[in-house]
Amino acid sequence: MRIVIVGAGASGLTLASNLRKNDDESEIIIFTKYEEIAYSPCAIPLVLGGCIESFDEIIMHEADYYRDKNIQLHLSTNVTSVDSTNKSITFEKDGKNDTITYDKLVLATGSDLINPEFDIDNMDNIHPLTNIDDGRLIQESIKDKKDIVFISNLSIGIESAYELAKNGYNVTFLEQSPNILPLFLDNELSEKLVELNNNVTFETNANIKYITTKYSRKEIKYNDKIISADVIILPNIKVPSTSLAKMAGCEIGDFAVKINEYLETSVEDIYAIGDCVEVKSHITGTQTYSPAGTTAVRQAMILANNLTGNRITFEPVVNTVVSQVGNYYYASCGITESFADMIGMPVVSQIIETRQKARYYPDNTRLYIKMLCKYDGTIVGCQMLSKSDLSSRIDVLSFAITNNLKCRELVQKEFSYSPSVARIVNPLVQLALEISKKIE
Amino acid sequence: MRIVIVGAGASGLTLASNLRKNDDESEIIIFTKYEEIAYSPCAIPLVLGGCIESFDEIIMHEADYYRDKNIQLHLSTNVTSVDSTNKSITFEKDGKNDTITYDKLVLATGSDLINPEFDIDNMDNIHPLTNIDDGRLIQESIKDKKDIVFISNLSIGIESAYELAKNGYNVTFLEQSPNILPLFLDNELSEKLVELNNNVTFETNANIKYITTKYSRKEIKYNDKIISADVIILPNIKVPSTSLAKMAGCEIGDFAVKINEYLETSVEDIYAIGDCVEVKSHITGTQTYSPAGTTAVRQAMILANNLTGNRITFEPVVNTVVSQVGNYYYASCGITESFADMIGMPVVSQIIETRQKARYYPDNTRLYIKMLCKYDGTIVGCQMLSKSDLSSRIDVLSFAITNNLKCRELVQKEFSYSPSVARIVNPLVQLALEISKKIE
Repeated sequence: MRIVIVGAGASGLTLASNLRKNDDESEIIIFTKYEEIAYSPCAIPLVLGGCIESFDEIIMHEADYYRDKNIQLHLSTNVTSVDSTNKSITFEKDGKNDTITYDKLVLATGSDLINPEFDIDNMDNIHPLTNIDDGRLIQESIKDKKDIVFISNLSIGIESAYELAKNGYNVTFLEQSPNILPLFLDNELSEKLVELNNNVTFETNANIKYITTKYSRKEIKYNDKIISADVIILPNIKVPSTSLAKMAGCEIGDFAVKINEYLETSVEDIYAIGDCVEVKSHITGTQTYSPAGTTAVRQAMILANNLTGNRITFEPVVNTVVSQVGNYYYASCGITESFADMIGMPVVSQIIETRQKARYYPDNTRLYIKMLCKYDGTIVGCQMLSKSDLSSRIDVLSFAITNNLKCRELVQKEFSYSPSVARIVNPLVQLALEISKKIE
Repeated sequence: MRIVIVGAGASGLTLASNLRKNDDESEIIIFTKYEEIAYSPCAIPLVLGGCIESFDEIIMHEADYYRDKNIQLHLSTNVTSVDSTNKSITFEKDGKNDTITYDKLVLATGSDLINPEFDIDNMDNIHPLTNIDDGRLIQESIKDKKDIVFISNLSIGIESAYELAKNGYNVTFLEQSPNILPLFLDNELSEKLVELNNNVTFETNANIKYITTKYSRKEIKYNDKIISADVIILPNIKVPSTSLAKMAGCEIGDFAVKINEYLETSVEDIYAIGDCVEVKSHITGTQTYSPAGTTAVRQAMILANNLTGNRITFEPVVNTVVSQVGNYYYASCGITESFADMIGMPVVSQIIETRQKARYYPDNTRLYIKMLCKYDGTIVGCQMLSKSDLSSRIDVLSFAITNNLKCRELVQKEFSYSPSVARIVNPLVQLALEISKKIE
């Protein structure tokens, strides 16, 4: 069997490695238009901030790692067309075209950055921030500079902003939404995050008009203000790369390539995973576009099982995230209250400020949690903020939400306890009981 | 309505406070034979080690805190009998007896320490380690001393042993079982814990014969050896206090007071919670005795709901624990492999040694995880060891086990990721997939 994978991002490469673990014999062939593969985009802020020494360190594997596993890897190669009737693809490298057939085709084509809506007179010292090349260019660009402006960005941008501020840069973050990280945090916790971490200047509701160049500096006009900067980082708004899927005749949904729970497109023997597909939201039951590295990897691992005889479903998403910004972590799962308002879902919410450890324990970090539940008590969202690692804490909520747990049922669940790491009544339980009382 | 609670440990006091939150009107009356209440027994090792300054700091509330909430609190008062026909109890204080009636009676009578099986010539400088009084006596006893011996103890003992070693004491731990913490860890991880944390001397399979006194020192004969010590800490083996329950005619199971899922005993209007009851194991479906502070508090919170009109069930336990010993944490949930062997349950297990954070992240802590699954893939146990806080990490497994998740299904679950706190493929998923391959 020949399995052809288009795309060597998190989903394509994870699929190839996991397929090979389960299957010694199939031919596995990957095509990517890029020269550099297998790095961790989430680590770009850490290199910019100097916590990790160089971009080379975040490259997980060289191409030979895959080739040694008998995975064929075509770098700098564009797949130009798909013929699903004859089950073949055409690709181009160094100006030469070639065609090969496939038994199974996996589209892991990812996403493309879209251009910002405001005018920019020239792109010197203005960068997007999505891949390792952007990271390298930014690193070069900020040398001996002082003033950096970020425009509306998600985790990778906020993390980078704080990393640069930590290193003495004067960083301003212009957010076009009413609060930062609007996909993950409601205004209470995003404002708290900004307040606690005060070395980046934030401006929300920033309506960016244009960017112009004045000598070697940039000027950004927003609302009725003009600020200047040495280097500007653009928003990273992504759109799914669906052209090959369209060419193959795959059904495209409202947002991206449509797949079923087995990650199959509407065309036989063609699968799609990663940033090019749309997924179902566990909370709303509707389709959504939610590109995330964790989703891409999960889809790849599930598809590797499905293609080798262990059918597992890919389940609707709840968007479980964690991120370190400055000295704090935030985490989120499910929907925010502002999203609930937007779609007209009535919810009851509550915030608590508590501590991570037993009350009497020294060196105790603050913990802010917001939870929201539907009127029937079903938990639909949770946001957290703390100086302590929140990754597993939000994973617990992710399990609770995917299990459709009602807030009152959290009290039935076992949580571990020791005074140096936890509280005898887990704050999630305390919060859930407060919400259940509000609901009554 | 008059609710009478016998016992003011974690279960009795939590029940009273939570009842009062839901119910302004009922009379709530607590009886306890002790003078001191509302402290955190789990914090005793931290006071012994000096991390918390004094035993006074781990007292969460004074009696007045409860009295201010209109909870009647009778300290130093023995409840001597229960008459379930007339719905009354008799109690004794300062030699005087009195009787009151109840509408609802809650037995939160806790457990008693049993005497060790070996001979002890006199009890000077020999202490049990269960309550705050023991803690104070030990603190006094170890002053200007050097050699401390612990005998077979669970978390509170192991934690204290390391806390004292940290402060320069010469600490030996004699474990009667083949490995330390046998209820929570199999030998691989308990040996690893001992190896990594090397400032306490452990002797396993120690068959203690007797303790004698020589001048001001103690001599302990075990196996064919004799060691001497200044102070000895005894095992804390507990038996449920069931005498009042028996008097009331409540059914007693193989281990302790029998309750149903609503925490009702077999006698109408009598409930029982905390260390005096037996519970059902989620894994085996059979009754077991598993006294734990977290269980006591959970039962109390659930009963507070049930007595005020929101019936919630108390679910079978999976024994989710976390503990800090020296510089490491261990955590455990479900059953151990040695327990599975003992009850004849066939399981497949696997251990991984991994890192908490992304591979390239500096200051990355080791993480050891063992998981065990039944032949159908159902996860039945998990043990972890790390320098980083494991409390929420084990809570995730607790949710997985109570949901009867199969190892392969873990790959369907969302886990959060950021390189500074997690790995893109959660180690639990990696481990689960390895086990599912072993099962095939």
